[in-house]
Amino acid sequence: MSEFFKLEKTSEDSKARAGKLYTEHGVIETPIFMPVGTQGTVKALDERTLKEVGSQIILGNTYHLYLRPGNDIMSKFGGLHKFMNWDRPILTDSGGYQVFSLKDLRKMSEKGVDFRSYINGSKHFFSPENVIETQRVLGSDIMMVLDECTDYPSEFKQAKDSADLSIRWAKRAKIALENSEPHYGHKQFLFGIGQGSMFPELRKDYINKMVDIEFDGYALGGLSVGEPAEIMYEMTDLSTDILPEDKPRYLMGVGTPQNILEGIDRGIDMFDCVMPTRNARNGQLFTSRGKINIRNAKYKYSDIPIDEELDCYASQNFSLGYLRHLFRANEILGLQLATQHNIAYYLWLARTAREKILSGEYRQWKREILDIYGRNEE
Amino acid sequence: MSEFFKLEKTSEDSKARAGKLYTEHGVIETPIFMPVGTQGTVKALDERTLKEVGSQIILGNTYHLYLRPGNDIMSKFGGLHKFMNWDRPILTDSGGYQVFSLKDLRKMSEKGVDFRSYINGSKHFFSPENVIETQRVLGSDIMMVLDECTDYPSEFKQAKDSADLSIRWAKRAKIALENSEPHYGHKQFLFGIGQGSMFPELRKDYINKMVDIEFDGYALGGLSVGEPAEIMYEMTDLSTDILPEDKPRYLMGVGTPQNILEGIDRGIDMFDCVMPTRNARNGQLFTSRGKINIRNAKYKYSDIPIDEELDCYASQNFSLGYLRHLFRANEILGLQLATQHNIAYYLWLARTAREKILSGEYRQWKREILDIYGRNEE
Repeated sequence: MSEFFKLEKTSEDSKARAGKLYTEHGVIETPIFMPVGTQGTVKALDERTLKEVGSQIILGNTYHLYLRPGNDIMSKFGGLHKFMNWDRPILTDSGGYQVFSLKDLRKMSEKGVDFRSYINGSKHFFSPENVIETQRVLGSDIMMVLDECTDYPSEFKQAKDSADLSIRWAKRAKIALENSEPHYGHKQFLFGIGQGSMFPELRKDYINKMVDIEFDGYALGGLSVGEPAEIMYEMTDLSTDILPEDKPRYLMGVGTPQNILEGIDRGIDMFDCVMPTRNARNGQLFTSRGKINIRNAKYKYSDIPIDEELDCYASQNFSLGYLRHLFRANEILGLQLATQHNIAYYLWLARTAREKILSGEYRQWKREILDIYGRNEE
Repeated sequence: MSEFFKLEKTSEDSKARAGKLYTEHGVIETPIFMPVGTQGTVKALDERTLKEVGSQIILGNTYHLYLRPGNDIMSKFGGLHKFMNWDRPILTDSGGYQVFSLKDLRKMSEKGVDFRSYINGSKHFFSPENVIETQRVLGSDIMMVLDECTDYPSEFKQAKDSADLSIRWAKRAKIALENSEPHYGHKQFLFGIGQGSMFPELRKDYINKMVDIEFDGYALGGLSVGEPAEIMYEMTDLSTDILPEDKPRYLMGVGTPQNILEGIDRGIDMFDCVMPTRNARNGQLFTSRGKINIRNAKYKYSDIPIDEELDCYASQNFSLGYLRHLFRANEILGLQLATQHNIAYYLWLARTAREKILSGEYRQWKREILDIYGRNEE
């Protein structure tokens, strides 16, 4: 039996659970939020600041890193950890989501997907096998299988054909895993990705097939793609009902603080999203007082800290009025402080969720946060 | 007698000198380089990183801060120190240089200068008196007089008329100083600014008149405006020959590492320049191996630290190859790391100059650095 994941506790009044993931770069306490480091950096945060705000694991994007710096450079540096000076765990996606987002630049086949670089138009090919190889070069602790991310909304036939292809690819990815070795000595785990659009039976069927293949963990993909939050919660719920208890569950690309709390409530252990970093760069902050836009004129004279409740350098040491000034003046420091704050908030949210699960107060605490943030994300 | 400046040692074989400036926000060891924080932030560096790399004093721009956030907000926050969370000394310029750079947006008179905001075209007026008042609102430890920065090159008549005006303004600034009080309790010193274009007699005459007015320190302005470095050194030399020994000397807007070492050699104590920060954002690094452009393809596979010789987080922990990747990928972290490195290098340069002056090895050490950087700035 794998010692990768240990379930510590499941809530009595919900499916929320606390656990631990064991990787050779460190232990990850779940539920966890993973800051997104697309191009080998979490935008505007250096490694020590990431650690200071409590990042246990970050995400890297295979698609972007494959195109730039490319596998030759990454290999020369001995993988992504050394390249970016990050010695804690890394999860890499498979690049599928990015390739499929670029509709005009790609062509699908059973074998894989031909695509052109968004940087210079050069031709490339991703297959279930070679994205495992690229993730071997990256040396991520957790790798993801290549899948086709179905459009939303989608007809049943289209969703089923796509899901069938993704399952065939998932099998090939598992074989590629078994036929390859880590490049840098440390073990690399592989997650499957559940598809099936918004069709409950398709999702369930997919999960059963995926569980038969046996992965180290199971992600839910094709969600948070434009559907109402209630449908995302429904798909999450029915998925975690049948996923094995002893494997981690990862809801990809999610989401708002509300989404994350509802995901945890439905038995999800891992989350990633560009929201805290991207929105920070647009001046939107997630704070213990709720969501705010720092450009708002009401912060003009506000000399109170960004968020006194949050144990974070940026949140404690700089005022709302100063941060507003930095944004109005287009100063880089504004992006740095806002990003640091938002990531600190998201990690506080995941950390506190874990504490509340362990102390048996998860539902009550979730309600308190939802009272601040509103039941529905805006 | 003022306890503001104490001269500790002058070199035996040059005019280089080590001293200390005493302000109510701390002691500044000279020679010193002052990182430029135009809009209330040294671009891409937070306060603790600025301190970590050894910043003893930073510069703020009166022109920019007067326009945004403006005196009402600055006053509400209790001055620039509190606004930007910087508890060490601050020097503010008078705004003159910026106003005179915007030729189409300003109109001179004996009384002062009418100008339009570069942000929104609104009308404003700077006088020797009201820039003192704005610097009172900013609460800088060292204030500068409003002066007219003469064009380069300039006819003698034009340079003399301009210098005469600046001297009349300098007298008015001194009176404005004496007729006003600090807003926040701490003492604010005032520096005069030497003008006179590239005419030796005009410069000397100006300095004599300025010294008669009696300021806490003396800056050299109107240099590093396009003239050959040799002329700048000549103007500096003749100025420090007649400036009082017991007052600090500040060479404004200078410069390259070479310029700074030559300035120190000629008796200058203080420097500021956007070069280390601005050039960092363009990928140009000042290192212990000389000047490099990080975008150069030769750093593609380079896994050595940015600068092993420099005691700085960015320089020690990230490779040239990684920094190159960040610049190619337009990542904010690239600007952060490059800026941190360059400021660390400039502060190392000033700190080491001081050590070498105190140990009697300044000239020898200067030659070693110039051997690395080339005798002439590029």
